Amino acid sequence: MEVTRRNYKDSLNTVYSAIEEADFLAIDGEFSGISDGPNVSALTNGLDTPEERYTKLKKHSMDFLLFQFGLCTFKYDQTKSKYIIKPFNFYVFPKPFNRTSPDIKFICQSSSIDFLASQGFDFNKVFCNGIPYLNQEEEAQLREQTEERRNQHANGVGTPSYISPSSKGPAHVPEEHKDFINRVIEKVEALFTNSEKTLDLEPCTGFQRKLIYQTLNWKGFTWKPLKQKSKVDDEERKRREQQKLEREQEELNDAVGFSRVIHAISKSGKLVVGHNMLLDVMHTIHQFYCPLPEVLKLKMNILNTEPFWLLLDTKLMASTQPFKEMITNTSLAELEKQLKEGPFKSPQVETAEGFHSYDTAQEQLHEAGYDAYITGLCFVSMANYLGSFLTPPKAYISARSKLVEPFFNKLFLMRIIDIPYLNITGPDLQPKRDHVLYVTFPKEWKTSDLYQLFSAFGNIQVSWIDDTSAFVSLSQTDQVQIAMNTSRYAESYRIQTYAEYIQGKQQDKEKLGQTAKTWGDDGWVKSHYTSSTTSGRLSPIPDEEEEEEESSEGTNPANDAEGTVTWQQATRKGQKNKKKKSKGVFVSLLTLLNLPETVQTVTWCSFL
Amino acid sequence: MEVTRRNYKDSLNTVYSAIEEADFLAIDGEFSGISDGPNVSALTNGLDTPEERYTKLKKHSMDFLLFQFGLCTFKYDQTKSKYIIKPFNFYVFPKPFNRTSPDIKFICQSSSIDFLASQGFDFNKVFCNGIPYLNQEEEAQLREQTEERRNQHANGVGTPSYISPSSKGPAHVPEEHKDFINRVIEKVEALFTNSEKTLDLEPCTGFQRKLIYQTLNWKGFTWKPLKQKSKVDDEERKRREQQKLEREQEELNDAVGFSRVIHAISKSGKLVVGHNMLLDVMHTIHQFYCPLPEVLKLKMNILNTEPFWLLLDTKLMASTQPFKEMITNTSLAELEKQLKEGPFKSPQVETAEGFHSYDTAQEQLHEAGYDAYITGLCFVSMANYLGSFLTPPKAYISARSKLVEPFFNKLFLMRIIDIPYLNITGPDLQPKRDHVLYVTFPKEWKTSDLYQLFSAFGNIQVSWIDDTSAFVSLSQTDQVQIAMNTSRYAESYRIQTYAEYIQGKQQDKEKLGQTAKTWGDDGWVKSHYTSSTTSGRLSPIPDEEEEEEESSEGTNPANDAEGTVTWQQATRKGQKNKKKKSKGVFVSLLTLLNLPETVQTVTWCSFL
Repeated sequence: MEVTRRNYKDSLNTVYSAIEEADFLAIDGEFSGISDGPNVSALTNGLDTPEERYTKLKKHSMDFLLFQFGLCTFKYDQTKSKYIIKPFNFYVFPKPFNRTSPDIKFICQSSSIDFLASQGFDFNKVFCNGIPYLNQEEEAQLREQTEERRNQHANGVGTPSYISPSSKGPAHVPEEHKDFINRVIEKVEALFTNSEKTLDLEPCTGFQRKLIYQTLNWKGFTWKPLKQKSKVDDEERKRREQQKLEREQEELNDAVGFSRVIHAISKSGKLVVGHNMLLDVMHTIHQFYCPLPEVLKLKMNILNTEPFWLLLDTKLMASTQPFKEMITNTSLAELEKQLKEGPFKSPQVETAEGFHSYDTAQEQLHEAGYDAYITGLCFVSMANYLGSFLTPPKAYISARSKLVEPFFNKLFLMRIIDIPYLNITGPDLQPKRDHVLYVTFPKEWKTSDLYQLFSAFGNIQVSWIDDTSAFVSLSQTDQVQIAMNTSRYAESYRIQTYAEYIQGKQQDKEKLGQTAKTWGDDGWVKSHYTSSTTSGRLSPIPDEEEEEEESSEGTNPANDAEGTVTWQQATRKGQKNKKKKSKGVFVSLLTLLNLPETVQTVTWCSFL
Repeated sequence: MEVTRRNYKDSLNTVYSAIEEADFLAIDGEFSGISDGPNVSALTNGLDTPEERYTKLKKHSMDFLLFQFGLCTFKYDQTKSKYIIKPFNFYVFPKPFNRTSPDIKFICQSSSIDFLASQGFDFNKVFCNGIPYLNQEEEAQLREQTEERRNQHANGVGTPSYISPSSKGPAHVPEEHKDFINRVIEKVEALFTNSEKTLDLEPCTGFQRKLIYQTLNWKGFTWKPLKQKSKVDDEERKRREQQKLEREQEELNDAVGFSRVIHAISKSGKLVVGHNMLLDVMHTIHQFYCPLPEVLKLKMNILNTEPFWLLLDTKLMASTQPFKEMITNTSLAELEKQLKEGPFKSPQVETAEGFHSYDTAQEQLHEAGYDAYITGLCFVSMANYLGSFLTPPKAYISARSKLVEPFFNKLFLMRIIDIPYLNITGPDLQPKRDHVLYVTFPKEWKTSDLYQLFSAFGNIQVSWIDDTSAFVSLSQTDQVQIAMNTSRYAESYRIQTYAEYIQGKQQDKEKLGQTAKTWGDDGWVKSHYTSSTTSGRLSPIPDEEEEEEESSEGTNPANDAEGTVTWQQATRKGQKNKKKKSKGVFVSLLTLLNLPETVQTVTWCSFL
């Protein structure tokens, strides 16, 4: 179902009940851009920590607009033993609510806009009929304003919202308007002496209206006396007051707009499935709740949305065992195709009556509603596949099954070699990186220079940080000390161990301790917007398909020796953490799949 | 005529000849926003200097996108004694030309987008079919790249554009791709041994293609040997080379795209008329030529476009005598209406065959093509009205008449009390502001506090600069010294004369002398983008109609005593400057209108 400002109000109850009855929800967002940083590679270093990656995205991706939000609800029908789905495609736009509401600015990235255009995206629906929204702060401000106006009104000290403080003082009435204004003032004053109930103003421009209010204001007029003089009897006035109150309340809800859908999803506590969903989640928080907190605050559920969103990322699931051996390309489109073939089974789904039923044969990729829909399909296929391990095998695995629990609240990280996910509700993996060197050098250097510098150490891997620094992963850890020694007297470049590098960053961070604490304000800090129009740098256009490919490469241990090693270390560490947190899950999983424990541990460790 | 990427190439000659034959051109632009500053009032202080205003707009308005450009050509037909017009409405969008071309980011302001949407603006035409463009720097870079590729090709050292330097070095081939890649490499190597002419690749993904190139590259393969092996005979190869060259040249022109229209306008040297056109001109330079220079460099015609654009601003014309007494509202729509009535005459126009003819009865305001059209009409009406002063009166005044010359290259400044325009080709007016005080105070202060502080000095005028400073204009200059004395021991606030304030700014500027000199680079400096989404500040939505009203108020001497006084001073100064520059014009004007000199001087001085 397509939802715009036009049919938003009428659809709201349909949306609410769909969420209420659902077993799980699938979501997807389309944005006006991805990164306002110099280039994507700088934004995604292969050895970022989850916190670093989150911080980069927070800084370089939040000034774009999430303008299409896809929601597909999945409800399992036991009798039909199939899922009943309800897909929604919301168009979202921050239409200013009134003359004092925030005038939001957002960035568009021409490559992203061009990509969406090539997919037949309808920008008019966004900009002309997008559903407005407010974040919590804006909503609070608006409620305050309304409250204030009400009180002022009650106390008879009224100032129309469009008289700014700085316009107080005697109004400067231009010559050509003086006659008109004077006529009006006379009329107003007449109200007090004669028997007229109402005041008919001549038609006038916004500017003239402003002058009238300013002049009256300056002459000490307030709106209450005027009202009293208008001699409307009390019952009538009460009735009008009541109507006004209701109207104001409704206007307020309209202004909160699409945020109400997001709040409903939060309240539902349902499992929310997405594909490569980190940016979707971040934009959702940023646009409809509050400026993004630090990663730690995020993990502490700073949003106080109880219950906290329960998330599952199908891209992470697909790039983890047992799936990662079977699925060569984890981009959504490819994943959906591969899950149609054995050993997987396409889930039985039926589109609820009155909803547009998508046909996966003729793809409508990158319409958020459709992407959400097939994301849900992929989740069901993979979950059910896990069920086939059970004895007896189960064909249907519920969204809350212990089998999928290991994936909860872990968001896929693109192109990080040894850390597959950001853990929203627990500590992040800390892979050993003692084979990694942090190298700084003149900005003229290219990768080839680094290969030359380390030619003695056999196969190395270079992860660029910026023009003058990169991580270099050696194939053997014991080479690190040798490299350090040889570099001691080098002048053009400098080498640190990864440990030293992290320590340095930690110290810098502690220096900034204060600001870190006041994250709330820091959230309001203006992000630095760099426009490529005026940048000499030429940044490549991100190619969706290839990006996905590379990302699957990035987290696939098969890619290179080091990768595999660290991955194993990472996941074992991860397992330890997890064990502490949910021994229950671990045990129950072992009993569910009754195979020798040794095998289990492997399966399990690759599950995390 | 509506011009998008679809019909751009076919229309180009029509556009060129329309410009060539025209007597004058009218233009208008539509933008994705106006100001990314805190709010409009901060951007337009009533006592800005022209340079200050220009610098503010440069900083706070250039990250928006000019995405619709209106051009209407006016050619006078002696025989029909009417203008033949050709209106064009161009949709413009920086579609990335290839994977290495700049990925431009631009800001959208929700109030502006919402306003255009309410006017029925078609965003899909912009984003899906907008004509691409390059500025001079980007065009040069692209030509360089093409040149390089050609040479590399000739020397046989070829690297496909999508192998970034950092991807040099041994390609890391994921397990699942290894077999495929190896098969391909074998095939390539086979080329050298067997008699095959061509190499058939299995279908593969972009990522696999990349791996192939990287691996071959690493193995020292270059494209020239491959070509030689392909054994195509020489004539054939030459023919292909030639085709390739032509194709590249055409692609290059396509990339330069809409900038070619702008260059044609420059080359034509025709008078370019706009309404309130400062932002249109600034965006045109910024988007299609180069980052905006400092105002001084601009006046020195840094663009080296010979002949330099000859500009005329109808809003300035309408708010200057003899028109300013007759025209109460200089917003384009209102101006057009008022110029239909006596003493003015609506010009006789005829839309050229094959062009969409606009009907001014049912307005299509804020379609750039239409706005350009009625801007041209307004210019003709006002110019012809000036002709009625001649003896004998002339009904038709040409675009190059001495009567309109005084308005050339002077761009209207919104809401500046005593300086009506930015002079592009000469020194700016320097009105005496010795009745103005620069006051700094705690940020809690409101206008009312300032009125109280200066209550002893009768009627004052306050122009806010920011939260903690404002200009206060006293009605009498001799009060300034008194105010200064009384303030000597004040602690909460501080008062400077306007002269002191300017001196201070001048000194700050001299400190920054160096950066000022390297304006070229400084043009590349990233502008600081502040997103209102994360700003506590609520900025009012600019109301087109009212803005215009206020601006007409701003430059209309009738508004307030000081205004008139300073305006007179300003224009007399302006006259002096002008006299020096073009005594010829002055004299000829006197002879044209043979009335007593005294009267002349008045008319004349109000003309400037």
